[in-house]
Amino acid sequence: MPSMFEGLQLPATFDAHVHLRSGIMMEAVVSTIRDGGADMVYVMPNLVPPITTVEACLEYRQKLQDLEPNVTFLMSLYLCSALTPNVIVEAKKAGIKGVKSYPAGVTTNSDSGVLDYKSFYPVLAAMEKEDLLLNLHGECPSSADVTVLNAEEAFLPTLGMLHRDFPNLRIVLEHCTTAKAIEAVKSYGPTVSGTITAHHLSLIVDDWAGDSFNYCKPVAKTPQDRIALLKAAASGDPKFFFGSDSAPHSTQAKQGSHISKAAAGIFTQPICTQLVLDALEQGCQEGILNEEQLTHKILAGFLSEHGRHFYQEPMSSSHLILGAGQNIQIPDLIPVDNRMVAIAPFRKGQRTRSLGWL
Amino acid sequence: MPSMFEGLQLPATFDAHVHLRSGIMMEAVVSTIRDGGADMVYVMPNLVPPITTVEACLEYRQKLQDLEPNVTFLMSLYLCSALTPNVIVEAKKAGIKGVKSYPAGVTTNSDSGVLDYKSFYPVLAAMEKEDLLLNLHGECPSSADVTVLNAEEAFLPTLGMLHRDFPNLRIVLEHCTTAKAIEAVKSYGPTVSGTITAHHLSLIVDDWAGDSFNYCKPVAKTPQDRIALLKAAASGDPKFFFGSDSAPHSTQAKQGSHISKAAAGIFTQPICTQLVLDALEQGCQEGILNEEQLTHKILAGFLSEHGRHFYQEPMSSSHLILGAGQNIQIPDLIPVDNRMVAIAPFRKGQRTRSLGWL
Repeated sequence: MPSMFEGLQLPATFDAHVHLRSGIMMEAVVSTIRDGGADMVYVMPNLVPPITTVEACLEYRQKLQDLEPNVTFLMSLYLCSALTPNVIVEAKKAGIKGVKSYPAGVTTNSDSGVLDYKSFYPVLAAMEKEDLLLNLHGECPSSADVTVLNAEEAFLPTLGMLHRDFPNLRIVLEHCTTAKAIEAVKSYGPTVSGTITAHHLSLIVDDWAGDSFNYCKPVAKTPQDRIALLKAAASGDPKFFFGSDSAPHSTQAKQGSHISKAAAGIFTQPICTQLVLDALEQGCQEGILNEEQLTHKILAGFLSEHGRHFYQEPMSSSHLILGAGQNIQIPDLIPVDNRMVAIAPFRKGQRTRSLGWL
Repeated sequence: MPSMFEGLQLPATFDAHVHLRSGIMMEAVVSTIRDGGADMVYVMPNLVPPITTVEACLEYRQKLQDLEPNVTFLMSLYLCSALTPNVIVEAKKAGIKGVKSYPAGVTTNSDSGVLDYKSFYPVLAAMEKEDLLLNLHGECPSSADVTVLNAEEAFLPTLGMLHRDFPNLRIVLEHCTTAKAIEAVKSYGPTVSGTITAHHLSLIVDDWAGDSFNYCKPVAKTPQDRIALLKAAASGDPKFFFGSDSAPHSTQAKQGSHISKAAAGIFTQPICTQLVLDALEQGCQEGILNEEQLTHKILAGFLSEHGRHFYQEPMSSSHLILGAGQNIQIPDLIPVDNRMVAIAPFRKGQRTRSLGWL
């Protein structure tokens, strides 16, 4: 009996949220993008220092393109005080797709992030006019009432405010992790969409309690939240599409120590399409989804087409073919250099399906 | 201006929940008990293998007493199928104080724990008759609806059932972490009490997200839950008393790695009284508590007298004197042997108050 998705052919994946880093980490990671089935990726700007000028963004794109000519790199700027309406006009001309906003302090390299959206309204107005995307890391910083558990929920009124004040601005609520975020995205007009990662389709809070390798921001939430994400991914609603938020860190940074906290982020790039299919299959096994609902149209929509449509990019002409579940092993470590630095991918050592390019 | 609690004299602390381990770890830990201000401790039985016989328990007590003659070690057995009503009768005669119950699989060395309380009703009936204590690790194992976040709440109906069925059995809900647990303990008769740790008076979920050194079971919950714990500790209600749940692990075990999860548990033994006072002071600074309410009677009650009373032990004739806040530094590491094994204590490297014995 063939396993679920065995022999499935899908258009190449659009990964609408990737961290490709710089230097040797970039070299190691970029080479894995096509292994994970993507031929187009939307690149996060939170390098150190962040990408805040058109020039730095184009230089970064050139480096990425030189490393991997067979992937299209869509680029973003980092929302901060250096961004002016003039930079937005210039960015549009240069083919930059959008602007990523990090509330200050909530995740990796977010120290330069946003404290008050109102002060950015002239920039957002220019983005709306130029039709650039706004990508939101949708969490409020922790405070007396806000923790990592309700930080996304606490941010949803801000999403609503931005949509109300800029109704034609295309907004992506990145890496939705809660049923409430899914409902909020659904409740707004067609200019608001949401991405869902591979790992949040699998993880709940228990998985990162005491396991820093499953720790990311936003943190994985409750079983009910995971169910809502699985259902959104399998719904065919074009508001929801895949963005891996694949975030490489060295094993040392992920592990932390008695003097430093663990880095937030989960590395899924080399197996991101495979992980989504595994999570959907698992959802069927748990009775959350059913196999009949996971049609080619649904899968191609979530993994490739909804995102390209929202990003106003052409559909892919390349196709993938998926192998049977459990037929390859995910490595424990992916080397970054020849010495001590390596990345431990999500579900390290476990089995997944193979993926080929047609 | 003297800092809060500077020069305060208190009766020696009763720490109603300690993990003293075995071997070299035991030797390192037992020597720190008096540093933390306790002259009486209630010792957990979750060694490897667990303490399930009177003979093993008395041997363990002798080892502890030999290491530290100036501390009274109250002993417990581990609830499992090896415990029979006859063992309970024998335990009472031998001066063993109680029986600790771990639901199977919820924390360190709990693999032999309880899956179904009803099967232990003959043992609980014997405990009620012999007046032995029942100490509950009050969490349900994770399931489709239960995570580390609501595992304690999910256990509260079991606490209610046990109290209803054994109204004269003295029950301690160990390490309360939620407002709901505090309310449940309050709602039952005087045979039900609850302990509160030092670290849960300080921590919330954000503190262990990405920091395995702040990870323990039950996990620290929300800011509102921490507030409820601080208020219970400062309430003077004799149902609530201190139990540190100090749980030493090597830094390697706490840190985890890409192939092993982090061990649950926080080590507070050498500074446990100091940490409670620091947490109460912090609660005053945050406006949760006020200084006037923290009378000598309240502090002596929570740290020493309520627990001894519930355990039917004499009050201490020894007294402590506390120094000013911030006047000593908590070490980064406490050595276990002369080579590679060390424990990183809670709030390592930070400052606390000194403590002397009068």
